[in-house]
Amino acid sequence: MIYLDFAATTPVSVPVREKITAVLTEHSGNPSSPHRPGIEAAKIVETARLDILRAAGLENSHRLIFTSGGSEGNSQVLMNLLTVEKRAGNIVVSAVEHNSVRSLLPRLERAGIEVRVLPPGPGGTLTPEAVLARTDSETRLVSIMAVNNETGFIFDIAAIAGVLKKQFPRVRIHSDFVQGFMKIPATLRELDFITVAAHKIYGPKGTGALIFQNNRLVSPLIGGSQEGGLRGGTQNVPGIAGFGEAVRLLAGKIEENLAQVSRLRAAFLKEMLKHLPLVQVVESKNNSPYILGLTVPGIKSEVVIRMLSEKGIFISAGSACSTKSRLRGSATTPPKYWG
Amino acid sequence: MIYLDFAATTPVSVPVREKITAVLTEHSGNPSSPHRPGIEAAKIVETARLDILRAAGLENSHRLIFTSGGSEGNSQVLMNLLTVEKRAGNIVVSAVEHNSVRSLLPRLERAGIEVRVLPPGPGGTLTPEAVLARTDSETRLVSIMAVNNETGFIFDIAAIAGVLKKQFPRVRIHSDFVQGFMKIPATLRELDFITVAAHKIYGPKGTGALIFQNNRLVSPLIGGSQEGGLRGGTQNVPGIAGFGEAVRLLAGKIEENLAQVSRLRAAFLKEMLKHLPLVQVVESKNNSPYILGLTVPGIKSEVVIRMLSEKGIFISAGSACSTKSRLRGSATTPPKYWG
Repeated sequence: MIYLDFAATTPVSVPVREKITAVLTEHSGNPSSPHRPGIEAAKIVETARLDILRAAGLENSHRLIFTSGGSEGNSQVLMNLLTVEKRAGNIVVSAVEHNSVRSLLPRLERAGIEVRVLPPGPGGTLTPEAVLARTDSETRLVSIMAVNNETGFIFDIAAIAGVLKKQFPRVRIHSDFVQGFMKIPATLRELDFITVAAHKIYGPKGTGALIFQNNRLVSPLIGGSQEGGLRGGTQNVPGIAGFGEAVRLLAGKIEENLAQVSRLRAAFLKEMLKHLPLVQVVESKNNSPYILGLTVPGIKSEVVIRMLSEKGIFISAGSACSTKSRLRGSATTPPKYWG
Repeated sequence: MIYLDFAATTPVSVPVREKITAVLTEHSGNPSSPHRPGIEAAKIVETARLDILRAAGLENSHRLIFTSGGSEGNSQVLMNLLTVEKRAGNIVVSAVEHNSVRSLLPRLERAGIEVRVLPPGPGGTLTPEAVLARTDSETRLVSIMAVNNETGFIFDIAAIAGVLKKQFPRVRIHSDFVQGFMKIPATLRELDFITVAAHKIYGPKGTGALIFQNNRLVSPLIGGSQEGGLRGGTQNVPGIAGFGEAVRLLAGKIEENLAQVSRLRAAFLKEMLKHLPLVQVVESKNNSPYILGLTVPGIKSEVVIRMLSEKGIFISAGSACSTKSRLRGSATTPPKYWG
């Protein structure tokens, strides 16, 4: 089997799996319980929380709450607009956001919030100036992903945040960082809200986090007293432990892995284009090497997927709403501890 | 270690843990992916979905979406009131609902929905007549848990639903069934919405389900296309597999386990009261044997918890908002497959 769909989800690495199994075996307490098994479970959660914040370079500026994944974090940031302030205002989002963001925009519109959708410019870019041009004093939130999940296009969210905050200091900036976290170097300190997920970085499905600047108002999506009242529900302790482990395994290796994946991607492309010169590469000037977008003129993506699937090679077409002929393979290199 | 806090969370049973580990090892696909690893993951999810619906006796009348746990399901049902219909109306809830329900009530109130809180009557009962007396043609939702998480009081939610639906067929009825699922026999077919969680029945934390009647309008809490667009986010495949396994292990054994736990509870009480005659039992006429509420006059619950904790015995006080002097131990019997 040649699995090339790491942007959809990654396998769980051996140390992460072992961590999860150990927690399932030995630490079954509820982190909210005041007795020893509870305190032990809470320690596991707090260790992961700090390690993830540190890996993101945000331990002094931001807080982190654990979620069930990237979609929940994205939803919480958007729905936050309906509860933390009374004014309607507007929201600026890129046209290529993840479905969890796009699917909730009509609800914001029905609540009277103007939704401004910004398509990427030529070459798949979203310049700070283009975002600034759609922003005004009524803008409450700008939500732009850092790495597009279908094409790998990188949007320089730090530069966007810098330019926006200078002109409109009250604008809140959110980035869906799911495809970039622990893969692409990024300065995140200017961002008000950041969503990440474990299952794109060899961690388990069902765990993610919403990271936000210390003094930001956050309203819970799920009721309850856990996570400081900002995210109800008993924490997924084994999943969170696995998430923490996945992050620790990649910490300090982002540049090294990026260089290695870039080499692999270039080698793959060179060889493929030698044999299949008709295939076109979907690429921007600033592209994540972890995602490789291809189009095969004249062949439907489903056909290519099925043909490759029969040979044990697994890739994705874009999500349901993208061009049918676009394919996506996300090349990556298994980490050294792979088993 | 004598862990008596199963109402807070249960350990994960060995077969459940093995199932989770197997899925983490062998089935790492994304259920939304159209290739073989994705299809295999989707099959795991669909098997669990059907098995859980069947165990609840609801495979012909209800649908099920997977959530991150009971709190998410409860939140989704309550927040549903803000999106599926325009009218304000009212909601009837018991005064002893789980914190995930109670904490969201002010948000409903701010949206103009009248919140009617119904305290249990003498002996901890909530009769259908008492609920009916607070219900009228403007009532949109009645939300009453089946088994209280602190006292184990059982509310006959099937009888309540029967009486309410006769008089007000359009009223929707929700029950937080987290403390009763796979433990207490119940007829659920009349209920519009039911929330359950895996980690109270030897399954993993981070997984639960919202079950609802086939033709009910449900609005997503988390955006995205998964779960028929009703719950976004990549499904927690290993957690869901573990949830399915936990349910299969208890299916058909509810009555047998209930009888065994009742015997254990009676034996424990008899022995305890022999040595500690001052301890009072918090009990209603219809009580879950899985939960045992005690009060120790004159001693703060924190003190009792700490003293017992030092001896390796772990119990809970009620949640933060309950009487300080109330203790809760949830007696249960480890299933036969326990390891």
